[in-house]
Amino acid sequence: MDEQQKDQPQKQGVYVMDGQEFSRDTNYIMDRIVADPAAVEAMPREEVDKVGRVHGGLTEDAQAWPVEAGRYRLVAARACPWANRTIIVRRLLGLEDAISLGTPGPTHDERSWTFDLDEGGTDPVLGTERLQENYFTRFPDYPRGITVPAIVDIPTGGVVTNDYPQITLDFSTQWTQFHRDGAPDLLPEEKLDEMHEVITRIFTEVNNGVYRCGFAGSQEAYDAAYERLWTAMDWLEERLSGQRYLMGETITEADVRLFTTLARFDPVYHGHFKCNRTKLDQMPALWGYARDLFQTPGFGDTIDFEQIKSHYYEVHRDINPTGIVPQGPDLSGWLSEHRREELGGSPFGDGTAPDPVREDERVEAGHNPMYLA
Amino acid sequence: MDEQQKDQPQKQGVYVMDGQEFSRDTNYIMDRIVADPAAVEAMPREEVDKVGRVHGGLTEDAQAWPVEAGRYRLVAARACPWANRTIIVRRLLGLEDAISLGTPGPTHDERSWTFDLDEGGTDPVLGTERLQENYFTRFPDYPRGITVPAIVDIPTGGVVTNDYPQITLDFSTQWTQFHRDGAPDLLPEEKLDEMHEVITRIFTEVNNGVYRCGFAGSQEAYDAAYERLWTAMDWLEERLSGQRYLMGETITEADVRLFTTLARFDPVYHGHFKCNRTKLDQMPALWGYARDLFQTPGFGDTIDFEQIKSHYYEVHRDINPTGIVPQGPDLSGWLSEHRREELGGSPFGDGTAPDPVREDERVEAGHNPMYLA
Repeated sequence: MDEQQKDQPQKQGVYVMDGQEFSRDTNYIMDRIVADPAAVEAMPREEVDKVGRVHGGLTEDAQAWPVEAGRYRLVAARACPWANRTIIVRRLLGLEDAISLGTPGPTHDERSWTFDLDEGGTDPVLGTERLQENYFTRFPDYPRGITVPAIVDIPTGGVVTNDYPQITLDFSTQWTQFHRDGAPDLLPEEKLDEMHEVITRIFTEVNNGVYRCGFAGSQEAYDAAYERLWTAMDWLEERLSGQRYLMGETITEADVRLFTTLARFDPVYHGHFKCNRTKLDQMPALWGYARDLFQTPGFGDTIDFEQIKSHYYEVHRDINPTGIVPQGPDLSGWLSEHRREELGGSPFGDGTAPDPVREDERVEAGHNPMYLA
Repeated sequence: MDEQQKDQPQKQGVYVMDGQEFSRDTNYIMDRIVADPAAVEAMPREEVDKVGRVHGGLTEDAQAWPVEAGRYRLVAARACPWANRTIIVRRLLGLEDAISLGTPGPTHDERSWTFDLDEGGTDPVLGTERLQENYFTRFPDYPRGITVPAIVDIPTGGVVTNDYPQITLDFSTQWTQFHRDGAPDLLPEEKLDEMHEVITRIFTEVNNGVYRCGFAGSQEAYDAAYERLWTAMDWLEERLSGQRYLMGETITEADVRLFTTLARFDPVYHGHFKCNRTKLDQMPALWGYARDLFQTPGFGDTIDFEQIKSHYYEVHRDINPTGIVPQGPDLSGWLSEHRREELGGSPFGDGTAPDPVREDERVEAGHNPMYLA
């Protein structure tokens, strides 16, 4: 997903609606890729909230597609926090061989994400220059924002789903036959009820809360958004002071969802979105937690800070008209000692860490303090 | 002075010149108010650089006016760092009874500073609504920016000088007969040569360096400005690691000039001007030094953080089109223990601290962590 997604068409670079609170479009292509399509099609259809669900069937009008290695391509810009989640989960679960990865560049025009970083400006598998083409292949009159992440059916070139909260859940629950040995359980059954609450609050107050600050159309809307965000940040700081991960002793889906926002906090949200009570690196528990995850294989090694900064500062011309990208902040602290091990726990539980990132998917040197220029 | 000051007239809210480096207009009304006008008039006339001078005569075309208690009004918006210097020095030297203070509000339109905070929107002594009127009284065709600080001759209502670097020097050297008992020597003769070098570097690299970052008209101009700024910040961090004040053991003019930029660093320059390698409060020596000065009578008690934020974020619409003012940063740290006393020295040397701020000049409650709302 990206913040361009709105109900109404909009001018290029316009994200702030004068006098209004920022409101995120929550209409997506809600098809799913599942292990047993017939069984899922037969389940009761219902509405789903934006945190996705682990059990349950399709929403009205949605279709089920079969899990199949090599058939689908995940299109996920590294810049985008919602897409970043899918890159992390794919890697934690070892789905690289089953689902290939296409990575649009960080900036885009009114027709959205392009494969400008690929040779010839074309995705090497899909053969398209713009993700928009793959949306139009599926729905010629597709009326909404062209968002990442999207999963494309390679044979037809059409988008199967862009329902970002469901994509990672289905990676965990539907693609199990392709999981690597030692893949962690990101959705432990006994934690699901509590995790749903945690994820819901993180989505509304933090993941989306930073956008509510940055795209506020009035001082009043901003002030209210700021209060909501920092109330939630204080809650997280407190929660993470006594336990290593959001749900306890091992990483889960909840940590993935919080992490992609935290990685962007100081580089972008602090200044660009005016989320500036303090920097993340001035909140001891959250900063220790963020670094712990960053240094865990599968998390930090997916982060491209240069693409992140470039995306936000160049695309949102209505809040940064010059398009100038700040040189700061100093990112070397992400590699510093965090001592979160002292809280106990182990990131992968009974599982193991994923292997190093495959060479053709590595973040560009100099774009992450792990990979020196 | 304020950043609106440019050689060319400009549209309201336009500070960034596309593709260009920010360039500060350095033409001012360079008259001076001196203890012995005839003597100063008789001295050789010469050009002066922008750090001002302690000894020496007038620049070409300038006039000398006599020091006289009650005759002049200092017009200094609390928001403006260049004006803030004059408020601090006036207070350190105890010139409140000799020179009255008018304080325009933080925001302004294309006709610049207004007395919107005063009853009826009119300065109670000058009787004007806009400082522009006082400029025009002196020079009906005044072609340049209407800047603060300005000193106005109350009997005629015309601006005498807006030459900000010279104003504080003349407060120290020309108004001595009105200094309070215990006033510090802000320009110790034996330090002047070195202080000139320090002040020059602080002016070009830091005081003005933050504007060069914020108003850069291209990525290249910004990148170069950022490097210059942080090179200077590292130099200051190093210099202040081993000594309490910039020139050694007591406060001087140099500290006043650095302080007004540091007070604005985290609230404004870090995010709004993209000076974001780190926050000031993450640089141990500079942050200790800034807090030490803040907690010294005459410095922090002149700072109105709300007016500062309001000014920059509301006036510079070309870099903050929404005009939304951030709620952060948390400012409570300004009152925290700094332990700079351990470096030795004493702010006022053989002198004493000024009395508390007179009631009618106090910063509004809630606008400074010293004065709770």
